[in-house]
Amino acid sequence: MSSRFSIGELIERKRDGGSLSPDELRWIVGAYAEGAIPDYQMAALLMALYIRGLDSAELIPWTEAILHSGELLDLSHIDAPKIDKHSTGGVGDKISIALAPMVATCGVAVPMMSGRGLGHTGGTLDKLESIPGFRTRLEPREFTRIVERHGLVLAGQSETLVPADRMLYALRDATGTVSSVPLIASSIMSKKLAEDLDGLVLDVKVGSGAFMANEAAARQLAETMVELGAGHGTPVRALLTDMDQPLGLAVGNANEIAESLDVLTGEGPDDVRDLALHLGIEMLLLGGVTTDRDEARRLLEEAIGSGRALAKLAAVIEAQGGDPRVIEDRSLLVQGPNWYEVASPRAGFVSACDARDIGVASVRLGAGRSRKEDPIDPAVGITILAKRGAPVEKGQPLARVAYRDADRLEAVLPLLERAWSIAEELSESPPLVIGRVG
Amino acid sequence: MSSRFSIGELIERKRDGGSLSPDELRWIVGAYAEGAIPDYQMAALLMALYIRGLDSAELIPWTEAILHSGELLDLSHIDAPKIDKHSTGGVGDKISIALAPMVATCGVAVPMMSGRGLGHTGGTLDKLESIPGFRTRLEPREFTRIVERHGLVLAGQSETLVPADRMLYALRDATGTVSSVPLIASSIMSKKLAEDLDGLVLDVKVGSGAFMANEAAARQLAETMVELGAGHGTPVRALLTDMDQPLGLAVGNANEIAESLDVLTGEGPDDVRDLALHLGIEMLLLGGVTTDRDEARRLLEEAIGSGRALAKLAAVIEAQGGDPRVIEDRSLLVQGPNWYEVASPRAGFVSACDARDIGVASVRLGAGRSRKEDPIDPAVGITILAKRGAPVEKGQPLARVAYRDADRLEAVLPLLERAWSIAEELSESPPLVIGRVG
Repeated sequence: MSSRFSIGELIERKRDGGSLSPDELRWIVGAYAEGAIPDYQMAALLMALYIRGLDSAELIPWTEAILHSGELLDLSHIDAPKIDKHSTGGVGDKISIALAPMVATCGVAVPMMSGRGLGHTGGTLDKLESIPGFRTRLEPREFTRIVERHGLVLAGQSETLVPADRMLYALRDATGTVSSVPLIASSIMSKKLAEDLDGLVLDVKVGSGAFMANEAAARQLAETMVELGAGHGTPVRALLTDMDQPLGLAVGNANEIAESLDVLTGEGPDDVRDLALHLGIEMLLLGGVTTDRDEARRLLEEAIGSGRALAKLAAVIEAQGGDPRVIEDRSLLVQGPNWYEVASPRAGFVSACDARDIGVASVRLGAGRSRKEDPIDPAVGITILAKRGAPVEKGQPLARVAYRDADRLEAVLPLLERAWSIAEELSESPPLVIGRVG
Repeated sequence: MSSRFSIGELIERKRDGGSLSPDELRWIVGAYAEGAIPDYQMAALLMALYIRGLDSAELIPWTEAILHSGELLDLSHIDAPKIDKHSTGGVGDKISIALAPMVATCGVAVPMMSGRGLGHTGGTLDKLESIPGFRTRLEPREFTRIVERHGLVLAGQSETLVPADRMLYALRDATGTVSSVPLIASSIMSKKLAEDLDGLVLDVKVGSGAFMANEAAARQLAETMVELGAGHGTPVRALLTDMDQPLGLAVGNANEIAESLDVLTGEGPDDVRDLALHLGIEMLLLGGVTTDRDEARRLLEEAIGSGRALAKLAAVIEAQGGDPRVIEDRSLLVQGPNWYEVASPRAGFVSACDARDIGVASVRLGAGRSRKEDPIDPAVGITILAKRGAPVEKGQPLARVAYRDADRLEAVLPLLERAWSIAEELSESPPLVIGRVG
């Protein structure tokens, strides 16, 4: 192994709360990526990093080293500003599917690389794959060609980008070192900065259905990522948004695509549309399309109202091998095959509709993965009928559950029954956008 | 892998400062020993254990699980009380070689399993192997037969005992998790308790040449080991002893054997003889040979004065394949081949004779190992001519260095030149025995 530094000494220094130099951090990431540092030494270092933290003088070189562990996208020949959006993950979070074509219609290129479902959250790639034929795995050349032609692509991470992040993430997942703010921030930012962006908008979720359950931790994560972007020379803005209840009404895969299409036809739930507009405004401002928020909102509303955003999505679906008829024929988005209704135990107002419980129930129905190798069932999922603030009668349905397997339904009913709280009085709901960073 | 517990959840709990139950700890050690928990997960857990610690409710089952990971010695058919001594490691620490036959002569069986040199410290096995023919690697049956016959055996750890400790130690060595009081205590005690002892005396070193540089840490280690012994039902006593300067005058291998033989002939340095007596008294008391300290001292002095301890050592050397003529013919203990004298830079009194510097110099001359696979050169080493408190003239030799290779000598001279401090006034030296635990 390369002996420019002693990995043992570096582990011990971090273990004792000391700092690692930029050169040391770059060497560690490079040596790990090339197999010169074994997993067990990196695991010990990750635990020391988890407990002792990384300050920004450490986190910037650590992230840059991960970023440079593989190829980088080169989109410099595309004139349009290249802006992406990343969400830290939530339940019912299908925002990208409506947002990306809205923004792409307004002259911003969106080279979007999304992820799969993780834990109790859904993943944009899994949702997109419920469109018959849709391919999310694109070679870099095809990825670039589609974004050149359409100003939009919706794909998975290329395996040639940031290999060190994939190695580190798999190791963190196995060693109890996932939920660290600096390690999460460096993982997200190394992936996003590899996309050759002119700007990045982050949707940092807060609440029961988010990885960050409280606002302080979410804000810290947002600030860390904004700082990493600044260190790289890429402007980053973050919104902190509510994830105590699911976004929209659909939680699953095919049903979330259908709801996204509703939003692009000017229908669909208010919160999905509102959050897409909030994030879209930030993307247009970052892309320099306009400097005026009201103007940005008008452009985005026009993208929906004119049908151009929907047409853009149809074109990209076709370019990625999918069946563009889903736009008109929702029966191509198969849901079911069996249905069950969750009834309200009493009359009152919905005071909670817990995102985590509903997310876990959706995963266990087959809409997500308990283990990485599990298949996704695109047809199953949950359609919420009453969210926070809704008045309900006793016995009124709170949700419709699409399921395949009676045993699985049985297993998730306790989760679904406890997910809703019904209060006598109507209480105020927290705002959708809690804060802003950057 | 066995899924009785989730290793990920256990790592996370310890990472966050929580406690692990006895069942969980036993499962972890067992699953790791059988290869069901991979090194990278154990490495993350070890770092969490290092930083968060183990309380005694955790440390006892952890240690017992390591102890039971392999075979246990069964010496129950030996009537004599079975008492061993363990030192945490120092420079010039050849105490075992004189002590063990002294004690064995007084009716205590000493089934001594020793270690090799580690870092800047020497190892009893390496020293013994400078006796021509001496074998330290004994099968359990031979080990037992020799202790049955002679009441004494001087061997290395059998590979069938405590395999989990060997696996954990190798992993700790590679992952910066060695210097943890509970992990050191559990490693030492699992090995020692596997020897089927009736009692154990610990020599916990304190000072520049020890792994524990300060008394508080040494005391904590001693208390932890005494507690682990009590938890197992084996009485343990610990002395805290000075390791700011080397023990005795010889630092190396063959020269340390020669010095040990000197002590057994009633000669040799006072500190080696004194510490052997201090530790021997504890061993005789623990073994129930007498309850009176003065009587114990008298018995040990008689073992030396009568020549019986020296004869015992000769018999055991012969039993283990060594040439017993070393007892009379010191030329069998080869030293040299070249010699160099370190001269005092000024007149005054020796105020420091740094154990760590001298230990590192001895290792680099070839008397110890920088890497596990390095060979030991038994002939090289350092013989100290002036220790703390000695008056010296300018140019008077402070030490004689036996070396093979001029390059190596050159490389260690700066260490040797700084190891001695010469003061104008005579200052008081700290006591040899600093404290007592248990």
